[in-house]
Amino acid sequence: CSSGTRFPNGDGTDGEYVGFATLPNQVHRKSVKKGFDFTLMVAGESGLGKSTLVNSLFLTDMYRDRKLLNAEERITQTVEITKHVVDIEEKGVKLRLTIVDTPGFGDAVNNTECWKPVADYIDQQFEQYFRDESGLNRKNIQDNRVHCCIYFISPFGHGLRPLDVEFMRALHQRVNIVPVLAKADTLTPSEVERMKNKIREEIDHYGIRIYQFPECDSDEDEEFKLQDQALKESIPFAVIGSNTVVEAKGRRVRGRLYPWGIVEGNAMGGPVPAGTGTSRTPSPSCGPHAGGLGRGAGGAP
Amino acid sequence: CSSGTRFPNGDGTDGEYVGFATLPNQVHRKSVKKGFDFTLMVAGESGLGKSTLVNSLFLTDMYRDRKLLNAEERITQTVEITKHVVDIEEKGVKLRLTIVDTPGFGDAVNNTECWKPVADYIDQQFEQYFRDESGLNRKNIQDNRVHCCIYFISPFGHGLRPLDVEFMRALHQRVNIVPVLAKADTLTPSEVERMKNKIREEIDHYGIRIYQFPECDSDEDEEFKLQDQALKESIPFAVIGSNTVVEAKGRRVRGRLYPWGIVEGNAMGGPVPAGTGTSRTPSPSCGPHAGGLGRGAGGAP
Repeated sequence: CSSGTRFPNGDGTDGEYVGFATLPNQVHRKSVKKGFDFTLMVAGESGLGKSTLVNSLFLTDMYRDRKLLNAEERITQTVEITKHVVDIEEKGVKLRLTIVDTPGFGDAVNNTECWKPVADYIDQQFEQYFRDESGLNRKNIQDNRVHCCIYFISPFGHGLRPLDVEFMRALHQRVNIVPVLAKADTLTPSEVERMKNKIREEIDHYGIRIYQFPECDSDEDEEFKLQDQALKESIPFAVIGSNTVVEAKGRRVRGRLYPWGIVEGNAMGGPVPAGTGTSRTPSPSCGPHAGGLGRGAGGAP
Repeated sequence: CSSGTRFPNGDGTDGEYVGFATLPNQVHRKSVKKGFDFTLMVAGESGLGKSTLVNSLFLTDMYRDRKLLNAEERITQTVEITKHVVDIEEKGVKLRLTIVDTPGFGDAVNNTECWKPVADYIDQQFEQYFRDESGLNRKNIQDNRVHCCIYFISPFGHGLRPLDVEFMRALHQRVNIVPVLAKADTLTPSEVERMKNKIREEIDHYGIRIYQFPECDSDEDEEFKLQDQALKESIPFAVIGSNTVVEAKGRRVRGRLYPWGIVEGNAMGGPVPAGTGTSRTPSPSCGPHAGGLGRGAGGAP
C-alpha cells in the first residue's frame, strides 16, 4: 500500500500528491531551478585552438574581447589565469559555465615550473571551498573548484613533449585531466592513430593518471554500452574546432574550408569529412559522463 | 678582329680554338667536373617537418637511420648539431649537399639560449675556413660554412613566438635566414595570408634581417621577372612536405591523403590542391637564386 496521501484542495479538486515517490521530481525541479555549475579549465600552448574548441563545444563566443599578445609582450609575460563566465540555457536547463584559461602557458622561452600558477590556482579554489564549508553561512557557497582540465597536445610533436609530461604530472592529483589531440585535421587518419597510440603509451609510461570515465550502468541498452566503450577507447580524443560557418553540400556547418576539401568541426572523434552524414559525437563536458566529472573533482583535496 | 688563334692538329684538322672566348666554357667544364657544395641548415622545433621538407626538396631519404627520442630523453637532451652529407647528381652535374640539423632545438622545458650551440657551430666553420685559407695548402680546403638556414615557423602560433624572435635575432648576422611557414596544409588560404602578413610585420618590427633574394638581371624576359617578383612577395614561403607517394587523379605525387582531399607536397608557394595541374614552383635551394645564397654566406664573417 502507498504511503502517499492526497490532500484535497479547497475547491474540491485533487491537490498535489505528497510522498517519497515525488522525490525524484522534486530533485529534478530543484536542479532545473537552481541550474548547474561547471568549471572547465583549458591548458596547452597557445595556438592549439583552445578558445576555438570551447566556442565550438558550447556554441558561444567567449573571447570576443580577447587581445592577442605579440612575441615581445610574450617574452616578459608570465602564465596568468583568466576566468570567463557565461550562462547557457538549453531546453530550460541553465548552466553557469566558467572557463578557466591559462594564456601564456608554454609560450615563454624558459618554461620551467610554468605549471605552478595553474596548480596554485586549483589549490586555492579547494582551500576557499573548504573555508566556506567550515563557515556559518553554508547555503550560498560559490563553488569555484575546477571540475575538469582539458589539456591540449600538439599534433606536431612526436608524442608528448617534455612540457606536457611535466604539466600532467604536476596536476594529475589535483584535477581531472582529459588530454586531447589538438587540431586533428592536420593529421591523416593513420597519423592520428599512430599519435594516439604513442600518447597512450607515454601516459602509461610516465605514470600519468588521466581522468577515467566511469563505468556505464549495467542496465543501459547494448547500443549505448558499445558507444560508451568506443568513446573510452578513443582517448585521447582527437578534436577539430571551428568558429566559421561554411557550406558543405547544402548544409551549413562549422568547419574549415581548405582548397582540397571541407572539414567539419567535430568535438571528439577522429576527423570527419563534411557532408558524409556522420553524426556529431557528444562533447566531453556535456556528454553522458558530465556528472562523473563533477563528482571526481569535488572529491579530491 | 679576334685575338683567338686556331692551332691546327697534326692530322690537318682544326684543333681546339684557344682564346678568351672559351673562358666561360672552361669555367663550365671545370665546375661540372668539380661539382658544387651546398650546406643547408634547418632549424625549428621538432615536429614541424624539417626532415620531411629536406627529403621532399632533394627527393632523397636523408634520415633513414634516425631515432626519435621520447619525452624523457628530451628533458635531459641539449641542442646538438648533426651533419648529413649526400651526393646528388642531376644531368651530370654533381652536388655535394650537406644538411646541418639541430635536433632538440626548442624542445626542452627551458629553452634559454638554446640558439647558442647553433651560433657557435656557424662561427666555428668560419674560423676553420679562415685558418685553412691562411695556411699553405689552399687547394683542397673543405668548405663547411653554412650557406643558408631554413627556419621553420609553426603554423599554430599567432605570429612569431618569443623563441623564433630570439633565434633569428641571434643568427641573422651570421647566416642567411630563410623563414618558412611550416606545414602550411594545416591552414586555410586566408589563414596563410594572415599569418604571412603577421610574420612579415613582426620580422620588420624586431629588426630581423632575413635573406634578401638578389635582384634578377635586367635582361631577363618579362615572364621570369614577374615570377621572380611573385616569389619575393611570397616570403615567408609556406611549405608542404611529404614523403609518401599517393595517387591523385591518375598521377602519382608526393602528398598527404586526408579523408577530405589530397594535398600535393609543394616546396614553396601556397597550398596546392592535388590534381589541378599547378606546376611545382622551384625549390628555394635549387632555384634561380642558389648562386646568390652561396655568395651571401661566403661574405659574412
